[in-house]
Amino acid sequence: MSENHRRVYNFNPGPAALPLEVLQEAQAEMLDFKGTGMSVMEISHRSKEFESVIQTADADLRELLGIPANYKVMFLQGGASLQFAMLPMNLRGPGASADYIVTGTWSKTAFKESQKLGKVRAAANLEAQGFNDLPASLDLDPKAAYLHFTSNETIHGVEYSREPEPPAGVPLVCDASSDFLSHPVDVSKYALIYAGAQKNAGPAGVVIVIAREDMLERTPANLPVMLDYKALAASGSLHNTPPCYAIYITGLVFKWAKQMGGLSALGKRNHEKADLVYKTIDESGGFYRGHAKPQARSMMNIPFRLPAEDLEEAFAAECKKNDLIGLKGHRSVGGMRASLYNALDLKASEALTSFMREFQKKHG
Amino acid sequence: MSENHRRVYNFNPGPAALPLEVLQEAQAEMLDFKGTGMSVMEISHRSKEFESVIQTADADLRELLGIPANYKVMFLQGGASLQFAMLPMNLRGPGASADYIVTGTWSKTAFKESQKLGKVRAAANLEAQGFNDLPASLDLDPKAAYLHFTSNETIHGVEYSREPEPPAGVPLVCDASSDFLSHPVDVSKYALIYAGAQKNAGPAGVVIVIAREDMLERTPANLPVMLDYKALAASGSLHNTPPCYAIYITGLVFKWAKQMGGLSALGKRNHEKADLVYKTIDESGGFYRGHAKPQARSMMNIPFRLPAEDLEEAFAAECKKNDLIGLKGHRSVGGMRASLYNALDLKASEALTSFMREFQKKHG
Repeated sequence: MSENHRRVYNFNPGPAALPLEVLQEAQAEMLDFKGTGMSVMEISHRSKEFESVIQTADADLRELLGIPANYKVMFLQGGASLQFAMLPMNLRGPGASADYIVTGTWSKTAFKESQKLGKVRAAANLEAQGFNDLPASLDLDPKAAYLHFTSNETIHGVEYSREPEPPAGVPLVCDASSDFLSHPVDVSKYALIYAGAQKNAGPAGVVIVIAREDMLERTPANLPVMLDYKALAASGSLHNTPPCYAIYITGLVFKWAKQMGGLSALGKRNHEKADLVYKTIDESGGFYRGHAKPQARSMMNIPFRLPAEDLEEAFAAECKKNDLIGLKGHRSVGGMRASLYNALDLKASEALTSFMREFQKKHG
Repeated sequence: MSENHRRVYNFNPGPAALPLEVLQEAQAEMLDFKGTGMSVMEISHRSKEFESVIQTADADLRELLGIPANYKVMFLQGGASLQFAMLPMNLRGPGASADYIVTGTWSKTAFKESQKLGKVRAAANLEAQGFNDLPASLDLDPKAAYLHFTSNETIHGVEYSREPEPPAGVPLVCDASSDFLSHPVDVSKYALIYAGAQKNAGPAGVVIVIAREDMLERTPANLPVMLDYKALAASGSLHNTPPCYAIYITGLVFKWAKQMGGLSALGKRNHEKADLVYKTIDESGGFYRGHAKPQARSMMNIPFRLPAEDLEEAFAAECKKNDLIGLKGHRSVGGMRASLYNALDLKASEALTSFMREFQKKHG
């Protein structure tokens, strides 16, 4: 049944394209997972078959990212949005303050959620200039419980190419949701990384948390167990029934990423894909205008505008006709947005940029 | 590819058997959902296609359960275990106390989680007698913020056939995880019902919360948004990216349940299935001993013991050889447990009871 399927170029910002091979494998074993006579959705989360699923996912992720042995990996629920609350609940400690670098919608939301639960400071806030850049300097609290940043802003398309440097002794915490696994990262620079899977790593319904073991010691007593990093890590993400199928698909994506040559190879491909689009924007003589300043450009999400809103509507409509899907921008930035996650290959960028040039010829 | 699959009799306690038709439909449209050229996992949660998925699931659930118009349905993450915390956070109010009926592992856990966050009372606690019955009477607080009960205890196999009656004005709250959708229920008797999907309603990774609208007005200001019933209900479960695929499968299960004749028909079938097993236990002359007292017997989960532990091990091993899967009991009760959720048909019960009689003949 997989031979005659129709597939499109999927530029969705998340949930997003998954590797075809992953979907095909999931499809093939939907009714009978590894000879169990059951779907992955039907097996016990305490079975040896599911244990193998989650342990293999853990091991493959460790290999892909080079996660040091003194870090725990958790597969949790509630998305990055629940992490916005769990993070300060677990890491901040009574009376302490945390620093946040605010570079777009997502870091702003993380900041506001944290503020509901205790003290926060903005080490930088680029909202006044429309979230189109990274901060030139930071106002850092040397006693902060942690320094939080968002490595890639999905909506505004600004991405760090190098981590910000916290003061000595201040743990660095990162929401990596939309550039997780898109390039190599030195995990040892981080105290904690979290990422919703539904961009580069899998389907919606699972969020990955990578925490250095000393961070787990900060969890206060008597947190509800589902909000307690220490308990969740100790249970190997199996305190209660985990989102088994989402973890399974995520594990297949990790396996695929290894087969693709790992994060260096994927990072190189991601650069090539994004470079093609940015080149098309830059060579359009102002017809296409990127939202982010060149030094802050994201390799994952490229928001851009056209000269007028009716042209943007025409662009979106013609894209759809050409099987280029998911290019409408977020309402807060307007215009278009191309999301170029891991599962997309160079052909997708070529198809998009070729369409962009055609469209400009016709309407420019 | 679905013709030659091997399928077993799946008595898992959860995650559990799903209807074969549901898995086949999911398999068929894995690569191309309704002509989108994308998997359900790859489409935006803001797309009209996913809107239709979640709205249809909502409407079908309302039809199945006869949910009155003044109730909201939410599809959330974190399982019933996160509800153990969200419930008192939202419904209890400062200084108030909540009543819990403790009839097994799950209501005991709900009670303990609630206790971390404020005042609780046990309206009954049957732990001393091994959680094998329902309470004969309740010690109820007429000023309780709510009365919580667990309609079916998955581990101990005790199930309410009629809801407990709270004092006038005290909202009734139910963890219905393991008998949700297994028989008709008068939702208007409840202020709030929650249920992890992974028994009768779908895969792990989504928990369904049905809340009367006045309950949403109890949510205090400044809760983290992912723990805030009012905000989550107002967003139609779309505050952040929901567990799209789990909701999709759950929606397919709702559709299947309607095609099966709805909850009356499924309830009748569930009774027939359970009656067969209980009859085999009762006619075994003490070889098989059910854990729950007859008046509290669950139609969903039937824990039972054999005369000796080595016989129980032999039973489990021979079951597996006969493609009867998931019958090992929970360690806290020991012995065996047959879970007979909606997706199992009478044949599964017949296969199990026929095996039970054979086994007794051989070893009795």
